[in-house]
Amino acid sequence: MNFARFDELTAKHKPLLGQAVDANRERRFYAHWPEIPSGKIYGETANADGEQAFKAKLNVDFDRLSQTGDFTLMGEEESPYGFTLGIRYPVYHEETLVGNAVEAGGEWSRLLPIDRASVLVEALERASALFFEIAYATMHTTGQGFMMAFQASGPHSFDRALESIAMGYFAQTFFTSETAWSKPMGKTTVELKKRYRIVPKGVGLAVGCSTFPVWNTLPGVFASLVTGNPVIVKPHPKAVLPIALVVAHMQQTLADLGLNPNIIQLAADTLEHPLAAVLASKPAVKVIDYTGGSAFGVFLEKLGAEQGKVVLAEKAGVNPVILESASNLDAVLDNLAFSVSLYSGQMCTTPQNFFINSNGVMEGDTRIPFEEVVQRFAAKVDAIAANEKIGPSTFGAVQNPQTLDRVREAAQWNVKVVREGGTVAHPGFENARTATTAILQADSTQNMIFEREYFGPVVFVIPTQDYNESMALALHGVKEHGALTVSVYTTDGDQKLDAEDQFTQAGASLSVNFTGPIWVNQSAAFSDFHGTGANPAGSAAFADLSFVTSRFNVVGVREVVA
Amino acid sequence: MNFARFDELTAKHKPLLGQAVDANRERRFYAHWPEIPSGKIYGETANADGEQAFKAKLNVDFDRLSQTGDFTLMGEEESPYGFTLGIRYPVYHEETLVGNAVEAGGEWSRLLPIDRASVLVEALERASALFFEIAYATMHTTGQGFMMAFQASGPHSFDRALESIAMGYFAQTFFTSETAWSKPMGKTTVELKKRYRIVPKGVGLAVGCSTFPVWNTLPGVFASLVTGNPVIVKPHPKAVLPIALVVAHMQQTLADLGLNPNIIQLAADTLEHPLAAVLASKPAVKVIDYTGGSAFGVFLEKLGAEQGKVVLAEKAGVNPVILESASNLDAVLDNLAFSVSLYSGQMCTTPQNFFINSNGVMEGDTRIPFEEVVQRFAAKVDAIAANEKIGPSTFGAVQNPQTLDRVREAAQWNVKVVREGGTVAHPGFENARTATTAILQADSTQNMIFEREYFGPVVFVIPTQDYNESMALALHGVKEHGALTVSVYTTDGDQKLDAEDQFTQAGASLSVNFTGPIWVNQSAAFSDFHGTGANPAGSAAFADLSFVTSRFNVVGVREVVA
Repeated sequence: MNFARFDELTAKHKPLLGQAVDANRERRFYAHWPEIPSGKIYGETANADGEQAFKAKLNVDFDRLSQTGDFTLMGEEESPYGFTLGIRYPVYHEETLVGNAVEAGGEWSRLLPIDRASVLVEALERASALFFEIAYATMHTTGQGFMMAFQASGPHSFDRALESIAMGYFAQTFFTSETAWSKPMGKTTVELKKRYRIVPKGVGLAVGCSTFPVWNTLPGVFASLVTGNPVIVKPHPKAVLPIALVVAHMQQTLADLGLNPNIIQLAADTLEHPLAAVLASKPAVKVIDYTGGSAFGVFLEKLGAEQGKVVLAEKAGVNPVILESASNLDAVLDNLAFSVSLYSGQMCTTPQNFFINSNGVMEGDTRIPFEEVVQRFAAKVDAIAANEKIGPSTFGAVQNPQTLDRVREAAQWNVKVVREGGTVAHPGFENARTATTAILQADSTQNMIFEREYFGPVVFVIPTQDYNESMALALHGVKEHGALTVSVYTTDGDQKLDAEDQFTQAGASLSVNFTGPIWVNQSAAFSDFHGTGANPAGSAAFADLSFVTSRFNVVGVREVVA
Repeated sequence: MNFARFDELTAKHKPLLGQAVDANRERRFYAHWPEIPSGKIYGETANADGEQAFKAKLNVDFDRLSQTGDFTLMGEEESPYGFTLGIRYPVYHEETLVGNAVEAGGEWSRLLPIDRASVLVEALERASALFFEIAYATMHTTGQGFMMAFQASGPHSFDRALESIAMGYFAQTFFTSETAWSKPMGKTTVELKKRYRIVPKGVGLAVGCSTFPVWNTLPGVFASLVTGNPVIVKPHPKAVLPIALVVAHMQQTLADLGLNPNIIQLAADTLEHPLAAVLASKPAVKVIDYTGGSAFGVFLEKLGAEQGKVVLAEKAGVNPVILESASNLDAVLDNLAFSVSLYSGQMCTTPQNFFINSNGVMEGDTRIPFEEVVQRFAAKVDAIAANEKIGPSTFGAVQNPQTLDRVREAAQWNVKVVREGGTVAHPGFENARTATTAILQADSTQNMIFEREYFGPVVFVIPTQDYNESMALALHGVKEHGALTVSVYTTDGDQKLDAEDQFTQAGASLSVNFTGPIWVNQSAAFSDFHGTGANPAGSAAFADLSFVTSRFNVVGVREVVA
């Protein structure tokens, strides 16, 4: 082992790793990379440079990867803002990718955890120079507004990656790596030298999604890497560029540090010839991180179970809101309207089902009738959609045309249309595919309709008899179909306690009385777990101990002292 | 939550918990319960009292359980020392057991981790008063000699239980349980109160084995309990009494502390109407610990995969020894002869396949021919078997008559019989079922024969061309069939490093040059992991972080500060 190889890097990054471990444990506010895309922070020309770098990538073959082997060039990305990216990526055969990974994994697995962690922090620090370029790449593959694209794929992703590194570093160094064991046995003492090796599971595969190609991918990638597993990143073929930029830059850092760039590889593919299932089935692939639809998630989970692979999946969920009482209903509705409008509801954390007391919502001593609540909620969405300044950047554009089909499908059920979905105009992008939130009113008995995930700009308001029925319906959805978020609005202390008890027991994270500039859709690295692993929405939580401990084993060696 | 309910217990046991956590991390020698069955430690009458208490249980219905519900009385234990125990146990319907567990789990899951840990330490401390009775119960169900029965089911088991408690306590308190989150956002600051709840997976099921009914059962039981899961203990119907004594005593402690005794229950069953698969299939059962044969282990793993249950299994392995060179061959052969003789090889950690350089074993500069090594090894086993003082207690008796069939079967292959298995006499137990180790010589091409687990008193010596062939054969067995232990004897530094690298990468624990009073069969709590989870012999390791983190989730609650 190369004990001294990365001494300099280790000395440089150990304080940050320590801070990140402490932040994880204390769950306080902590962010290493500033989330404001400000010239004062990132350099006055950073934005313009990033946009230019992005534009220079268009209609050109992507040539930044350092990974080895033969490839063909393919690409099919289109901006939801209305143009074709025209980028072709090197597409590698699965055997090339797995062979490269196995080879690169040998050396990587033998590094000390502190060395791996330091190399990965260095790779993040260097890649953070690309935040603006990654932001434009994200905007024009996912349809996110610029601000979200910057934050989600830049500082927030990188903070989640640092969180994974810190957790993995901690877990691997929890046990001493060697000890002198001395057992008194009557008149004699038995002396053993003992050593403990971290043994990674094998090749990691990270299957990305089209809406958050960096944010949902980096936690698993860095958790696998820090624990010694080489990783193959399989992006969604419609959202390759953002993560390709990260992977290519990381490969450059690895090569600069004298390491094999194939420790992380990009497995670009096409819709016609998808690689995820093929790669997942390879015997050498032992850890699979996945974000996406439930059907393929279940396929991967079954495959993993049969073949002894670890599968950490985030699948679909149906996120409920319970609206019972509030001290300031206007502030509540502002918050909720923004939550559902943000990125046109294309977040796994967007609320979908609003269970509202049909007798009205109490605001202090005043009962606001159900219909009024719903109308005021719809009006708030109208206002965002009509606001030329914040509307376009809030809603962004729609990543997948099928999302619009889903909205149309939802409206065709026997439901009342409270608010029809509309569009927003993006000046400069006349062909942008946009959609504002449709609000549909369903009956509490129509759970066959609303207990499905309608990923995108459609929500249901469901009048209930009372708090108890709201809870029962919301809990049923969580237990049967999973949820990434649950929101409860109540000023009643008993209801708060009850909701906390019941939703946490059902394995769902709870947000209580959210108003102001903090939305249920968002989770903060180092403080909020994303996912719980305790409900059908997924088996992974960014980043609890299980998220890292499942990726390696500890194997002991003991030797009699001669 | 009852924050102050167990303050006194917590204050009493927190120092011990802290010591146990530290010992786990440092992997140094640590033992809370003395392993010597001495009157000076445990009281001059402890042994006689224990034996008397055991004898008083014979031919009587077991009436110590506090668990609730209807039952029928059944029992079929027989001492391998040649008599029927005649004890009938209450056998409960699976619905009763699961219903009790779910009900008891509610309160248990809501206790603070420190409270659960303190209650469990208290339960162990109190139950340690039964060490001698448990020892006789173990001896007369498993066939172990008295010393092993005392140590394995008493202090060693309880130390492993304490290890699980400490690991589970640490893992649950790794993250703070609440924080004030304060995010600066330009001119404002967002303040959230955040809480984090430990949410146990559900009902735990611990399926025991007939040879180590306490030692292999307690780690999973205590790991599940400390993380908030109620547990159903399903012992092997031929080895109920040792663990029944522990469960009944724990129930008493729980009841004394005002807790529901059904937090831990005994699910006695019969060979004719086995309960393990039935219980494992119940939806409420979410965590399954298992020790036993591979076929049922694989069944449980598949079931778990399909139904989203955590399965922590220890299955069969084939443990290799590589004998290449030694500074004192006599000391090596003494050690190995005792290893294979101990409890007639009925340990999952007993070496089975001895890969010995056919050109002889180097002792310093002297080459000892293969045939001489094998003959001297056989003579050492002869000497233990013929020694009336240590022979009977070393070999003990044979738990299962089928074990003798397996020895006969092995000898019928086309192999050379180096040493025929014999018997030992146990004065006072004329009908004891005993067997001394058969030593068979197989060819290196006969891996179809030796790459199977022959659980019991049979080992293979296999001449190899050289160290490399020994390694290749041993590694093949480990990778294909798993291993709980691997032993290597070499004085060559390069070979030591190579063996360490290759076996740890293959996920197998390694013991190097064991001589003197320390045997590869044994693993020390707090220092040696038992199992690795990284080879086909099992998915669990007593007790790494995964062993506890897989049994609960952390679920967050965040609330806007009004």
